[in-house]
Amino acid sequence: MNPESFQYQFMVSLHDIDAAGVLFFAHLFRRAHDAYEAWMEVSGFPLDAMIRDGNLALPLVHAEADYRRPMRHGDKVCVLLSVAEVGTSSFKIDYRFQTQDGDLAATARTVHVCVHPDKGHSRQLPELLSTALRRLLAKPDAAHSGDPRLTRLAFNPS
Amino acid sequence: MNPESFQYQFMVSLHDIDAAGVLFFAHLFRRAHDAYEAWMEVSGFPLDAMIRDGNLALPLVHAEADYRRPMRHGDKVCVLLSVAEVGTSSFKIDYRFQTQDGDLAATARTVHVCVHPDKGHSRQLPELLSTALRRLLAKPDAAHSGDPRLTRLAFNPS
Amino acid sequence: MNPESFQYQFMVSLHDIDAAGVLFFAHLFRRAHDAYEAWMEVSGFPLDAMIRDGNLALPLVHAEADYRRPMRHGDKVCVLLSVAEVGTSSFKIDYRFQTQDGDLAATARTVHVCVHPDKGHSRQLPELLSTALRRLLAKPDAAHSGDPRLTRLAFNPS
Amino acid sequence: MNPESFQYQFMVSLHDIDAAGVLFFAHLFRRAHDAYEAWMEVSGFPLDAMIRDGNLALPLVHAEADYRRPMRHGDKVCVLLSVAEVGTSSFKIDYRFQTQDGDLAATARTVHVCVHPDKGHSRQLPELLSTALRRLLAKPDAAHSGDPRLTRLAFNPS
Repeated sequence: MNPESFQYQFMVSLHDIDAAGVLFFAHLFRRAHDAYEAWMEVSGFPLDAMIRDGNLALPLVHAEADYRRPMRHGDKVCVLLSVAEVGTSSFKIDYRFQTQDGDLAATARTVHVCVHPDKGHSRQLPELLSTALRRLLAKPDAAHSGDPRLTRLAFNPS
Repeated sequence: MNPESFQYQFMVSLHDIDAAGVLFFAHLFRRAHDAYEAWMEVSGFPLDAMIRDGNLALPLVHAEADYRRPMRHGDKVCVLLSVAEVGTSSFKIDYRFQTQDGDLAATARTVHVCVHPDKGHSRQLPELLSTALRRLLAKPDAAHSGDPRLTRLAFNPS
Repeated sequence: MNPESFQYQFMVSLHDIDAAGVLFFAHLFRRAHDAYEAWMEVSGFPLDAMIRDGNLALPLVHAEADYRRPMRHGDKVCVLLSVAEVGTSSFKIDYRFQTQDGDLAATARTVHVCVHPDKGHSRQLPELLSTALRRLLAKPDAAHSGDPRLTRLAFNPS
Repeated sequence: MNPESFQYQFMVSLHDIDAAGVLFFAHLFRRAHDAYEAWMEVSGFPLDAMIRDGNLALPLVHAEADYRRPMRHGDKVCVLLSVAEVGTSSFKIDYRFQTQDGDLAATARTVHVCVHPDKGHSRQLPELLSTALRRLLAKPDAAHSGDPRLTRLAFNPS
């Protein structure tokens, strides 16, 4: 586990489950976004204020996920959010979904660009946001250290 | 069945189902709103244009539903939308959810008020919308005619 | 505020909002169910175990909500869950949605019946569940005490 | 446009939109799955029967999407579903989201494996499903023919 990650926790709820008895794959992205929104808030960039201010938008241009093990109703999941890349006007967020037994159930990535909301063209990331993102940047060696079984984390949903 | 009703059809999808194996109760309201939005569009009041124009909003002030039989994955459902009441600045929509075998699986109602979006206070319903709503007004005798097993309807999702 | 209520907190997220800029009405029911599911777990009746065991199901037969003020992106909402009625084989849950400024934004109610999952007919509520429900039963005088402006609650989402 | 594609249509609804005023990115995956589920049904493999029969499951192991232009409330979207690859026990589905003006708003891909539901290990795709999938297989030259502006399609949601 990357020490520079932000933790977000949730329980797989009755309505997260689909007719096949597992977390519906699209809901993984909703949960990832909840983790991202929680991190943006604690980092001083609450999305609601950003949208209201209208100076800056961070639309997603790409999203992807790999599903390793099904997540089931009642599973207590820790999302470990880290930053894979920070560019001049874009960034990539990585999410690791770890269940209560320490298994890595899924990973996801979202790619965001920084744009002027009205003009639509890209702009530089604000310095403070760029700094906040770099604080969660995964270290190169951590990224290549295979996939050791994760430590159990105390569950405390937020 | 009230002849003055609008029909909207959908299939209960993989993600409509919850961990208990039936349509999650909150999704009934999403499906009801899809029926309402489809009716508003064919009636000449597409919600997206109404929101863009900004002269008029129709927020919900009340919603309710009764669940009679579980709806399951793959069920083909007809929503029969009718109007229960049209006031000066409010209206009530009724929804009957009928499955492919003719059973009434659920009913729902939404109550909307007509407001100025910015000022927030209520305003009169536009004449044309009021007329469109009255066309779907359930007849008093139909409302009291019990609940006969509904006719099967050809399924043609919209 | 009823002292016998259970508190559940959430933040109105980016995806809770609809094209009209407010919490989509059907998502209020999803949030209410999250509060119910959280309460059932702390009360010793986690829904996932109940469904797995297969001895007992508590399907919803009715749901309703009144919307008083729009909830917006970023609002910090406390759901106050209390029990309106406990019968032999059914119960009614009440939900009050209070925003960070102390306003009552919405109320909701869900009605559940206790059934044998396979046989489909109703059965008595287990004694322990009935007792847990009664602990949250609103006092008669509280129910009639009007609607005083609620105290601000510390926000601590769960 | 690949002539071997299946068309699925929907309108971007009030609840598809998020606080930023565009289709919430995770809902693109829900809409993609609706297209997949509709295609599976017309191809003779309705997912509900497959899950009930319990001989075969097709869980997603990967999903991804690229967002090119925002989709907005009221947009009429055609999803063009084609098959990117058919293996012995897995397949890849491609989705192209085209709005009413002929623009390609987004693309998505889902990767499915064929497993024994109980045993969990992979199994061969049934011959008939494999054949149905191959019928939608994009031709190699089509895949490399750039991205011409798509023809407008008549809108007829299903």
